[in-house]
Amino acid sequence: MLRALELASRAEGLTSPNPLVGAVVGRDGTVVAEGYHREAGAPHAEVEALEAAGARARGATLYVTLEPCVHHGRTGPCVPVVLAAGISRVVVAVADPNPKVNGRGIEALRGAGAEVNVGLLETEARELNRPFFTFVLERRPFVTLKGALSLDGKIAAWDMTSRWITGEPARQAAHRLRRRADAIAVGIGTVLADDPLLTVRLPEPWPREPFRVVVDSRARTPLTARVLTAGRPDRALIAVTESASQDRVRSLEARGVTVLRLPARDGRVDLAALLGALAEREVVSLLLEGGGELNAAFLEAGLVDRVSLFVAPLLLGGAGARGLVGGRGRSLKEAFRLRRMTVERLGEDLLIEGDLEPQ
Amino acid sequence: MLRALELASRAEGLTSPNPLVGAVVGRDGTVVAEGYHREAGAPHAEVEALEAAGARARGATLYVTLEPCVHHGRTGPCVPVVLAAGISRVVVAVADPNPKVNGRGIEALRGAGAEVNVGLLETEARELNRPFFTFVLERRPFVTLKGALSLDGKIAAWDMTSRWITGEPARQAAHRLRRRADAIAVGIGTVLADDPLLTVRLPEPWPREPFRVVVDSRARTPLTARVLTAGRPDRALIAVTESASQDRVRSLEARGVTVLRLPARDGRVDLAALLGALAEREVVSLLLEGGGELNAAFLEAGLVDRVSLFVAPLLLGGAGARGLVGGRGRSLKEAFRLRRMTVERLGEDLLIEGDLEPQ
Repeated sequence: MLRALELASRAEGLTSPNPLVGAVVGRDGTVVAEGYHREAGAPHAEVEALEAAGARARGATLYVTLEPCVHHGRTGPCVPVVLAAGISRVVVAVADPNPKVNGRGIEALRGAGAEVNVGLLETEARELNRPFFTFVLERRPFVTLKGALSLDGKIAAWDMTSRWITGEPARQAAHRLRRRADAIAVGIGTVLADDPLLTVRLPEPWPREPFRVVVDSRARTPLTARVLTAGRPDRALIAVTESASQDRVRSLEARGVTVLRLPARDGRVDLAALLGALAEREVVSLLLEGGGELNAAFLEAGLVDRVSLFVAPLLLGGAGARGLVGGRGRSLKEAFRLRRMTVERLGEDLLIEGDLEPQ
Repeated sequence: MLRALELASRAEGLTSPNPLVGAVVGRDGTVVAEGYHREAGAPHAEVEALEAAGARARGATLYVTLEPCVHHGRTGPCVPVVLAAGISRVVVAVADPNPKVNGRGIEALRGAGAEVNVGLLETEARELNRPFFTFVLERRPFVTLKGALSLDGKIAAWDMTSRWITGEPARQAAHRLRRRADAIAVGIGTVLADDPLLTVRLPEPWPREPFRVVVDSRARTPLTARVLTAGRPDRALIAVTESASQDRVRSLEARGVTVLRLPARDGRVDLAALLGALAEREVVSLLLEGGGELNAAFLEAGLVDRVSLFVAPLLLGGAGARGLVGGRGRSLKEAFRLRRMTVERLGEDLLIEGDLEPQ
């Protein structure tokens, strides 16, 4: 199963909106064949492994990191393939949270006479597909707050300069985070201050352009903003409220971008509604890239799952310089806490990551 | 010499205003005797090692981490002791920067016929006594900016709560930093907001109470402030400018504390003058504990040598919540940069340290 998890992780960033899945066909303690889900639309892991095994699958054990499916998606269901291959025992790490599957794959296998064991390395298997589990169970993307900041918490200097706070290795890693995301979001303040591209700038190909999302209650995004045209226009989403000027919305739409009119909450875009709209577009992972006000709003709404902070070895100071998290702030007792914090060196910078503790 | 450096470091925090010094008497590649300077007023390292060696010092080599002294301080000069013991060769890591010594010890030894080699592990020996070198060469204390902050750079929440941002292991380490310091300084803003004690709260004894310093241009420290009476009153120093009210100054002095009237610079206490006044009181190491405005003023004056930041795994947010470094701030190009940054885990917190790059 460890090997199956390893195989699954090879496709990280390539399978969305599908989960990462790995499969191993084994017999008498040796590996007969292996497979993994390489990208959305490609064969499922079980099918790949069984095809590689051929006749050697008969009577063998299939180890798979996620419950085999029984429904038609981009490809056909896996359970009939498993049964047809003559597999006699299936070891599943974790049941599929998808309500279209959730236990039915296991039932169908058992109904057909196969032995099924569930729960081997379940924690690791859930961990591997955390965004997918959040997406399926909560019908919203998994949200990672990403920031590049100084040791004293500034994302820009007092004079608004912010390029670049961190060094090249950190920026490369940030682009790898972008590549794994289905959408990248910033607030209108960041668009007006930094005019970011929100594109993935890596030499390697990635399966699709992440959506470039601007949270822009009043549709103030300039028609010349680089985010509109930095990639395919239809991958730019401008989230506005009902109160945004119809003229501005039409001008934006004329640029070929999609304007999402969403309900307001305290005069701003309702972030839960935004995440719902993104989930409808198969956004499983959202990378939140500030600024401080949008970060604070996501945190206050309880909609941040993880943080990835690139911290540079410098002090910028400035009581008025922009910080990572704005808003009113929290008291010490109600602070947003991270758990399972990790620290990694990237060149001269640090990457500090952790999961948000549920409030 | 490595052994001598190890011995020297045993007395860390105990020898101020003297340097840390270790000595080894060796012969034919084996250690004959060892010694180190245990605390200010105690015998110098060479003397301790030579006493332990007794007659075995005759014709042996003395390894010492700092040039032996020729002047009378709290104890007599070491060079005559070395010569009387019959040492034939002296290996010195680094010359004493003290103008009363600086090369004269080496000359005196050579003049008396001893062989002297200088420079073995010199970098390490300088590193060991960085505060001492700064103190002697610049006639000011070595300044370490210490802070306890959230990942987003806040030293207090929006509601001013700041106890405790970090956990017990980090707070213990912070008290160890205090124990090694000769003085601990805060600004009047921190006194008014937090009413800190500025004492060393550790079970072990330390050689002297660090001075508790408040930078308080207008003498606004309340007469009930805990910093005045948390330790010996004569270890409390209130640094004011000439423009502070004479009445307030007298009231403070009536509490038994020392008020330092210092020149002003832009209406505030001239920090270089403050450091000069502290150096006169044999303050070799100063621990700067904020708040943000005082930290910024020290940084802007180029008077911070090192930072020690205890970073808690939490986000406090709040555009108005107090940050580690206030003031106007620096542009990205002119940011205060750290070099040789180290990261250590202390319970759930991080200790991030580094030296300030000269501007």
